Amino acid sequence: MTAREPDRLADLPTPSLVLDEARLDRNIAAMAAFASERGLTLRPHVKTHKSVEIARRQVDAGAAGITVATLAEAEVFAAAGFTDIFIAYPLWLDADKTARLRRLLEASPAGTGPLLIGIDSTEGAERAAQAAAGLFDRLAVLVEIDSGHHRSGVVAAHAASVASAAVQAGLDVAGVFTFPGHSYSPAGRRAAAVDEARELADAVAALAAVGVSARIVSGGSTPSAEFADATVLTELRPGVYVFRDAQQWELGMSTPEDIALTVRTTVVSHRDNHLIADAGSKVLGFDRASFSTGFGRLLDHHDARITAVSEHHATITGVDLPTGSQISVVPNHVCIAVNLADEYLVVRDGAIVGRWPVDARGANT
Amino acid sequence: MTAREPDRLADLPTPSLVLDEARLDRNIAAMAAFASERGLTLRPHVKTHKSVEIARRQVDAGAAGITVATLAEAEVFAAAGFTDIFIAYPLWLDADKTARLRRLLEASPAGTGPLLIGIDSTEGAERAAQAAAGLFDRLAVLVEIDSGHHRSGVVAAHAASVASAAVQAGLDVAGVFTFPGHSYSPAGRRAAAVDEARELADAVAALAAVGVSARIVSGGSTPSAEFADATVLTELRPGVYVFRDAQQWELGMSTPEDIALTVRTTVVSHRDNHLIADAGSKVLGFDRASFSTGFGRLLDHHDARITAVSEHHATITGVDLPTGSQISVVPNHVCIAVNLADEYLVVRDGAIVGRWPVDARGANT
Repeated sequence: MTAREPDRLADLPTPSLVLDEARLDRNIAAMAAFASERGLTLRPHVKTHKSVEIARRQVDAGAAGITVATLAEAEVFAAAGFTDIFIAYPLWLDADKTARLRRLLEASPAGTGPLLIGIDSTEGAERAAQAAAGLFDRLAVLVEIDSGHHRSGVVAAHAASVASAAVQAGLDVAGVFTFPGHSYSPAGRRAAAVDEARELADAVAALAAVGVSARIVSGGSTPSAEFADATVLTELRPGVYVFRDAQQWELGMSTPEDIALTVRTTVVSHRDNHLIADAGSKVLGFDRASFSTGFGRLLDHHDARITAVSEHHATITGVDLPTGSQISVVPNHVCIAVNLADEYLVVRDGAIVGRWPVDARGANT
Repeated sequence: MTAREPDRLADLPTPSLVLDEARLDRNIAAMAAFASERGLTLRPHVKTHKSVEIARRQVDAGAAGITVATLAEAEVFAAAGFTDIFIAYPLWLDADKTARLRRLLEASPAGTGPLLIGIDSTEGAERAAQAAAGLFDRLAVLVEIDSGHHRSGVVAAHAASVASAAVQAGLDVAGVFTFPGHSYSPAGRRAAAVDEARELADAVAALAAVGVSARIVSGGSTPSAEFADATVLTELRPGVYVFRDAQQWELGMSTPEDIALTVRTTVVSHRDNHLIADAGSKVLGFDRASFSTGFGRLLDHHDARITAVSEHHATITGVDLPTGSQISVVPNHVCIAVNLADEYLVVRDGAIVGRWPVDARGANT
């Protein structure tokens, strides 16, 4: 920061993303320790933070590599020097994405592991092979398994045909992965981890039956990670754990003291029955899970609820504060709030100690 | 565009925002003609598009000025040369926003009208007066009225005390404004316009009783504009009409042929009962009104529905298409999708004719 910029949090524009560095580091260390104790590789999903600085801290704390959701995120993190990257998405390699994937493969430093990408169809496998022609040592694929979230991915019984197509096309099939997204319910966390282990084990067996040995068996969301079956999985890909959010709080996964990222906002209007704060859906997002009690929580006012949001208004009930008060809102889904911002204001002991860019903001192609 | 860039839509990265220039121009012209016929000033809300190019077209077509939601948007459009700007929001002028507002006032060209801002409290009025000290001729305030949306704003009966405080503090009170946001329901459009006219008329009377003559009486959302009462209102502030979106479609306000903005996306996964396309909540947003039939519509497949979205996945049912198909998704709430993108791909007759930046993307403080 230059000398002319404000260094007091209260003097900065609202709404702004505020990151508590000590809590961030604690969350990073705790998940790294958990994975290490279980003998699991940790490959955190950086779509949550889209930050080179935070990804470096995750790797420094023991993460083996990183997970991204898009080719554009892979481009940002590869340019920043990351070499062990998994694009955990069934990329459709059209002309644009084929050209971009080839540039990534060609630029990958010698001696590093292959870039990993997801596939969930035989045609996806064939396109990946075409895209990697002549560069087969720099790419490996993982077959996406649907373990109950019912989004992309194949059921375990179909994994063998996708893997066989990939092998026949000349690709290195590194293994299988799944996202047990149905862990996002208070009662669903353990059950989703059970589904995840069963479906991944079935998929590993299906691959073995056609002669493919899965060296990577990858799963794990933040809510299900605690219950991950280390006899089946080799790695975890949690994302939200670095920051936590109101969903994790309301799932019983996080206490308010764990939450590292908030949106600092100002009460701009005081009505008889509610307050209006200046962070709306263009800052917090509009995500609201079936179990959520509102559109976000207030870090320091646990009885308050955000009962409505529009683009620049959050309607808050359950707390009375004077107009002009600054409050810390915990977004329901932190990955969404981060993608709406350009930078983090990093605080330690209440003082601003840095500004980190959201390097991959909008890198969603 | 340089010669090396692709000029075929099918070769561009998905997901991307695609803007149909002919439809945009038609929508701009239609609303301008409507306002002109009614004798209403048109002051379009540019938070929808955040684009200098589109705002220029609106002004060229007859808009008297523009409406913005934030000081940061005002900064972007003032820097681009716009002089008649209304920040339709009850700004809380803390140290940061006071300094920024003063810079805007100081930079406003001589001979142009005042910058307009919203207020909804006596303290807000006093702060505005402090911020404009010595520059009172460059600022005017409008009192925000709650006409039934129950967000910010005061009820009409309280408008006089806010206006009086503003006058006493030395401010020019230009009038009153409201956002009849409860027009966003299929049965609510006409009723919201009736509420809008009644509450604005009451507020005008309340101001007159304390000696304040309202020269601006501002209302109007896209769904309610058709029913705006020109015997009460002097100006309309619709936003979404330039693009339309799935909400307007499902409100019966727009036909698919009116919709100027879509998200071009690729089918990346084909399951037994659904498709997965590569535009999720980080591109479309997560908005879903109570009357919405899904998380967006498909422009060319009217029976299809987006039944779920996650960050990079849209789950589509009701249509069967091969993997790799490119489809045009109509976002539920277009203002949100625009704020998630960096540029528009502008097409005319199916060919790309330009790229326009989303100039005020993220300008939400």
